[in-house]
Amino acid sequence: MTTDVTSGPADGPEPTASVRRITDDLLERVEHRLRSFLTAEHTRFAEVDERAATVLTTLSDLVTSGGKRIRPAFCLTGYLAAGGDLEDPGIVSAAAGLEMLHVSALIHDDVVDNSTQRRGKPTMHTAFAQHHTRHTWRGEARRYGEGMAILIGDLALVYSDQLMAHAPTGLLPEWHHLRSEVQVGQCLDVTAAAEFAVDPRLSRLIALIKSGRYTIHRPLVMGAAGAGRPDLAAAFAEYGEAVGEAFQLRDDLLDAFGDSAQTGKPAGLDFSQYKMTLLLGWAMQRDEHIRTLMTEPGHTPDEVRRRLLDTGVPDDVERHIADLVERGRKAIADAPIDPAWRTELADMAVRVTYRNS
Amino acid sequence: MTTDVTSGPADGPEPTASVRRITDDLLERVEHRLRSFLTAEHTRFAEVDERAATVLTTLSDLVTSGGKRIRPAFCLTGYLAAGGDLEDPGIVSAAAGLEMLHVSALIHDDVVDNSTQRRGKPTMHTAFAQHHTRHTWRGEARRYGEGMAILIGDLALVYSDQLMAHAPTGLLPEWHHLRSEVQVGQCLDVTAAAEFAVDPRLSRLIALIKSGRYTIHRPLVMGAAGAGRPDLAAAFAEYGEAVGEAFQLRDDLLDAFGDSAQTGKPAGLDFSQYKMTLLLGWAMQRDEHIRTLMTEPGHTPDEVRRRLLDTGVPDDVERHIADLVERGRKAIADAPIDPAWRTELADMAVRVTYRNS
Repeated sequence: MTTDVTSGPADGPEPTASVRRITDDLLERVEHRLRSFLTAEHTRFAEVDERAATVLTTLSDLVTSGGKRIRPAFCLTGYLAAGGDLEDPGIVSAAAGLEMLHVSALIHDDVVDNSTQRRGKPTMHTAFAQHHTRHTWRGEARRYGEGMAILIGDLALVYSDQLMAHAPTGLLPEWHHLRSEVQVGQCLDVTAAAEFAVDPRLSRLIALIKSGRYTIHRPLVMGAAGAGRPDLAAAFAEYGEAVGEAFQLRDDLLDAFGDSAQTGKPAGLDFSQYKMTLLLGWAMQRDEHIRTLMTEPGHTPDEVRRRLLDTGVPDDVERHIADLVERGRKAIADAPIDPAWRTELADMAVRVTYRNS
Repeated sequence: MTTDVTSGPADGPEPTASVRRITDDLLERVEHRLRSFLTAEHTRFAEVDERAATVLTTLSDLVTSGGKRIRPAFCLTGYLAAGGDLEDPGIVSAAAGLEMLHVSALIHDDVVDNSTQRRGKPTMHTAFAQHHTRHTWRGEARRYGEGMAILIGDLALVYSDQLMAHAPTGLLPEWHHLRSEVQVGQCLDVTAAAEFAVDPRLSRLIALIKSGRYTIHRPLVMGAAGAGRPDLAAAFAEYGEAVGEAFQLRDDLLDAFGDSAQTGKPAGLDFSQYKMTLLLGWAMQRDEHIRTLMTEPGHTPDEVRRRLLDTGVPDDVERHIADLVERGRKAIADAPIDPAWRTELADMAVRVTYRNS
């Protein structure tokens, strides 16, 4: 069974709601794959030691704590748009592997960025540090919390690969690129924050690597490659890089002006971590005083926010997001895929760039 | 070309020096594989950004800083003893992947254990933190140093897998077990240290997972599986678990009494990190005062060392190491492998358990 959802030119393309249901069905199979994989691992480690099984419970709790599954959705959509076989379990494993990689990245990023909240709950290292303090254990609570999060993030990274071992082999080169690139991109990100030099070229490169390629372009291309359609790589790359930049810009806006209750993360984390985002880089180019507000003691995040708004950059960023979404739509306008999937990809670009969490 | 090094029963087994040369030749190919892999990645990232290439240089420096290559050696020996084809490049990639995994583990362990020295140089997180301080960058130097080490350790973990993608597929199930198990084992290790409760059963389980299986048993079995000889798994497991426990006990002794100039690591790290090693667990069962010396302020590592010697446990541990090496030798006495490789495995057991670094 393939995913050609049009029965013929006379009928025209199916409405996008119908193709989205196909993706949603596959996404449910991804959930099932993740849960059954982790349950099997839990059983395996429970036979070794009760404490070992606890590690698996902690990881499972995070995996099932309500992520948006953006990367699996793009991978599956790339696969389906390319006419991939719906019955092949390989692509479900690939999408599950992408999500597991993301969970690993979240756990480690939260340590690297010293973030206290994720999905409305204490981050993993925070929870372990609190546990250490409550039990008045030996050593430093911070180191114990971060140590456990490093190791459990490593475990998730290993598992992402174990899931990917069942994926169609054609997508593996893209997978290898995606994984190494995102780690190097993160290194650039934390170094740019430490240097805190305004360098929009570097900020843009980081956004491209961390969001454009990691979240959208490479998952889409993995899906197409898994369906045996490497010919779609160029159009999907162009779409992914444009929509990915818009995705990252929305992230910057949500961090600065979003509602912590909706994002599930602390507000203003980029400020406190000196993240040289595109938003802040552009704003500082227009108003150097923002740098002072961020780096000298005695200023509140609210002052930074007000001054940011005064520069007019947030409005410009909104316009830029709209342009990028349009650019993404055009990039796939002539791609040789079913028109219903083209519409769905255009819709997805809007959904991921106009989100509130 | 297979590795049957005897030309017939009349000649008897070749001297072990001769089969070791075969392993050493393959180990040289492993070095070459690691270097050429990292050079290619360096080139790839240098095209993206100069700073990205620096990340690769940092990783390459550690990979080529003189590790003992114990895991690759056991993997290759398992493969060769099982009659694996010398010309198959797959096993070289597998051994390189094992070493890359180990480099990842070292980088992350040094953060988790807050260790300042590795192979006689500052650990990766220490070096990055120093760099941050020297340049008076933004944010916390410790967090920057540890953040970079987390990300570069992740990169090495990703690369270990990329190398393993070229390995004989028969060894992958064992590889998956090895990797997830070692992360969970590390979680148990840091939690046991935090709790600091004497529990020799748990200490032994941790030693089994972290050293027996990770360092010896599973690399050997991977090698045999790569050569299509899963029938050797039971004998290699028994050998690996015995010699691995001896390996870990030597590690405990070196940490407590070894010469930092030779080990390249700080002396007494287990004490300062409250590691509930087998050595310390047994010693505390015999003399409760050691616990006080380790946990109450005002006592030096030298006091702990002297008291440890007084218990007589270090001498018992030496005898136990000798027993375990003998047990390892017996485990493979009837294994259906060339006698020269049997002798070489017995020699390896001695070499890795009577080392000074």
